[in-house]
Amino acid sequence: MAQPLDTIIIGAGTAGLAALREVRKRTDRYLIVNEGPWGTTCARVGCMPSKALIEAANAFHRRHTFEAFGLRGASALTADLPSVLQRVRALRDDFVAGALKATHELGNNKVSGRATLLGPRSVDIDGTAYATRSIIIATGSRPRVPEAWLAFGDRMLTTDTLFEQPTLGPRIAVIGMGPIGVELSQALARLGLQVAAFTTGHTLAGLSDPTLNAELAALLKQDMVLHMGAEAQLREVPGGIEVASGANRVVVDQVIAAMGRVPNIEHLGLETLGVPLDARGLPTVDPQTQQIGNLPVFLAGDANTHTPLLHEAADEGHIAGLNALAPNPTRFRRRTLLSIVFADPNVAVVGPRVADMDAHSTVTGTASYTNQGRARTAQRNHGRLCVYADHASGRLLGAELCTPDGEHLAHLLALAVQQQLTVHDLLGMPFYHPTLEEGLRTALRDAARQLPHTHASDLAACPALGVPALD
Amino acid sequence: MAQPLDTIIIGAGTAGLAALREVRKRTDRYLIVNEGPWGTTCARVGCMPSKALIEAANAFHRRHTFEAFGLRGASALTADLPSVLQRVRALRDDFVAGALKATHELGNNKVSGRATLLGPRSVDIDGTAYATRSIIIATGSRPRVPEAWLAFGDRMLTTDTLFEQPTLGPRIAVIGMGPIGVELSQALARLGLQVAAFTTGHTLAGLSDPTLNAELAALLKQDMVLHMGAEAQLREVPGGIEVASGANRVVVDQVIAAMGRVPNIEHLGLETLGVPLDARGLPTVDPQTQQIGNLPVFLAGDANTHTPLLHEAADEGHIAGLNALAPNPTRFRRRTLLSIVFADPNVAVVGPRVADMDAHSTVTGTASYTNQGRARTAQRNHGRLCVYADHASGRLLGAELCTPDGEHLAHLLALAVQQQLTVHDLLGMPFYHPTLEEGLRTALRDAARQLPHTHASDLAACPALGVPALD
Repeated sequence: MAQPLDTIIIGAGTAGLAALREVRKRTDRYLIVNEGPWGTTCARVGCMPSKALIEAANAFHRRHTFEAFGLRGASALTADLPSVLQRVRALRDDFVAGALKATHELGNNKVSGRATLLGPRSVDIDGTAYATRSIIIATGSRPRVPEAWLAFGDRMLTTDTLFEQPTLGPRIAVIGMGPIGVELSQALARLGLQVAAFTTGHTLAGLSDPTLNAELAALLKQDMVLHMGAEAQLREVPGGIEVASGANRVVVDQVIAAMGRVPNIEHLGLETLGVPLDARGLPTVDPQTQQIGNLPVFLAGDANTHTPLLHEAADEGHIAGLNALAPNPTRFRRRTLLSIVFADPNVAVVGPRVADMDAHSTVTGTASYTNQGRARTAQRNHGRLCVYADHASGRLLGAELCTPDGEHLAHLLALAVQQQLTVHDLLGMPFYHPTLEEGLRTALRDAARQLPHTHASDLAACPALGVPALD
Repeated sequence: MAQPLDTIIIGAGTAGLAALREVRKRTDRYLIVNEGPWGTTCARVGCMPSKALIEAANAFHRRHTFEAFGLRGASALTADLPSVLQRVRALRDDFVAGALKATHELGNNKVSGRATLLGPRSVDIDGTAYATRSIIIATGSRPRVPEAWLAFGDRMLTTDTLFEQPTLGPRIAVIGMGPIGVELSQALARLGLQVAAFTTGHTLAGLSDPTLNAELAALLKQDMVLHMGAEAQLREVPGGIEVASGANRVVVDQVIAAMGRVPNIEHLGLETLGVPLDARGLPTVDPQTQQIGNLPVFLAGDANTHTPLLHEAADEGHIAGLNALAPNPTRFRRRTLLSIVFADPNVAVVGPRVADMDAHSTVTGTASYTNQGRARTAQRNHGRLCVYADHASGRLLGAELCTPDGEHLAHLLALAVQQQLTVHDLLGMPFYHPTLEEGLRTALRDAARQLPHTHASDLAACPALGVPALD
């Protein structure tokens, strides 16, 4: 056997490509192995095609505001679903081409095939064993579909197949109302499909604040039928697939399973590493080094199920790439948690969920957007925002929200949490008029009123304004 | 003469009402005097009606994306301009009613009439002299129109009269391309008017960065005819008003003067204060106390021409209200400068303008939105963003931008400048995918590459990523 490689990257998705960027800077004794189509989950079947679909859906939905704006002729507008999906694919192809550039000129460092670990320093690739000083596992994830439902064949859709359809519906069920279920069900409903959505739980889009969940449920019900709190059962009936949930029954043409994702680890041989594996077959991964135990093996991206988000997968890939080639792994501080769901209004969670905070030491500031000035001028006056602050220090701990342009408010709040700013620090920034940020200010003022007065010591003269005195 | 009042507030606009909030908490021996209609410039003729118009215009303009999205029937859409303007007025009336609530139940503390100073402790109100311990001047501003142009009668419009028109055009000229001129000219053009816009200068919407000015000019020219760099001359011709600027000539039905605003101080008697007045007739006002000299007289809001923006006027009103009743004035630190122009793409300036920065100690990071992923999915891929950082410290000094949803990016950048964050601090925050904030990250990375490596000392392992190492 030849001299060992420096590393083998298994998987060429977002995490694998991020690792590749670091690895290429340091060595050319590496392989990147990919099974199945090259191109990231994000570009092929995730973030990008879903956003292309959502933008078309929201552009079309906006016609309901036209008459009130003084714009005529909205009733003539129609959504040509095959064309909408065709554009989604065209744009998707372009984003995939962008992702493929990263591996385009790798030559012999790039291998298409199945990789299986033979141990912490050896990988089998389609029958050939390679010795390596380290291994980076970045095999990603795929949509979870109950085994029995596969019997419905091509009427059982996931994000892997949805965007490939020439057309859809007209009756469609979405099972699971996490981030992906909420985004897709609303977009498809707004494009004219009859959508029935189902979730076993009582929370939507990853929100944990009950007030926000109730508001979001009411908003989603304007576009679709939504059943919460009971498991969905599927069976073949004349004319379609019947979805039953509690006392509710609906017959549809297609079903989208949006029930989360499972890591791609079946054929990986993780059992050869000699470390304990959990019920899902996964080893423990240190989120600050991406290392598995003390082995020269690193796991990054969706495959580790920590936080299946692109920007986290990219960070994990970089960390794994750096640490796989370093004599000793570096520990990295991870960014403030941020998740965004591109529903309308946008949904976001910044920092830990409020459900995971200590209720006794936390104050909640809230603001409704129903009567918010700028939102009214745009006919986008829906939703609500909550900020959570530490009662003792006034520090902003996190936020949950469901507001117009909430994706942007969430970034501002994530910066504030990351920088450990207080509610009064935030009140000291400029809030332009008229903007949606003024709604955030309302929530911050609501929180400030509940904080001990001492936090406003330098603002005592003018706490509502948040203008710090110079002296 | 009776015992003196504690204060007299002259003007019941945004600044006067902010002062009123502070004054009412501390005394009932005050008057608030207003000449002409009650209700703020913002609600009556400023921020709110313009935003209502802009939202209608942009909703209509969006039809040009429909065919590419796969949506049919856009050619049937029309803008019913009289209805658009009627909605603007209906919404405006509602916002004015909200502003009037602040003075609704003031009883005898509220006076409609003209106030004229008789000195630093005495005010004449329609013939009656009042002694007072302090005076708060908040008389606001009005659009500037050259005297000679008033001859064009009701065809010469300003923001004071524009929204009152039953309809407009079809041919309209906008003179002046600062924030208001840019907003109105684009909105009216997008609602179907033939707009010709003129500006004597070479900058638009308050931008000072030449690259951004060039991009914005090119974008605005998609909607209208734009002539820059020569003064506009108006004359009556058969069939309308001819606007001549350099070699360019155009005949229009109406002209909007958007040439800035002048303070309302003519009848105020500022000369009785015994302090020097500048060429415009204004005394020097301390921007941290709002005080005029050492007098018990305070000037707040547009009338002082520092920064004619609502959030600054409100701050100044609060400061004036606090200081008018305090034994000694408190000095307040003012917020980071932020100005936003609600063009599409949005325009914003955060912190000092780049033209006012020291070019030798400043690095510029820039990013185009023409090929930005999320912007492409939404067909909003236009514009550019520039961040400016101090070369020695890496601190973010400011930003100028012209991007989709720029109003939100500008708030995030304003928070960063206010908190004195560095480019690397910002790169350490989460950037969700796919968002327009990723374009900002591109600009930040561009700036980071130009900074001395020492600023990235704690990120040495991974500067592009901005993940700070734990140890």
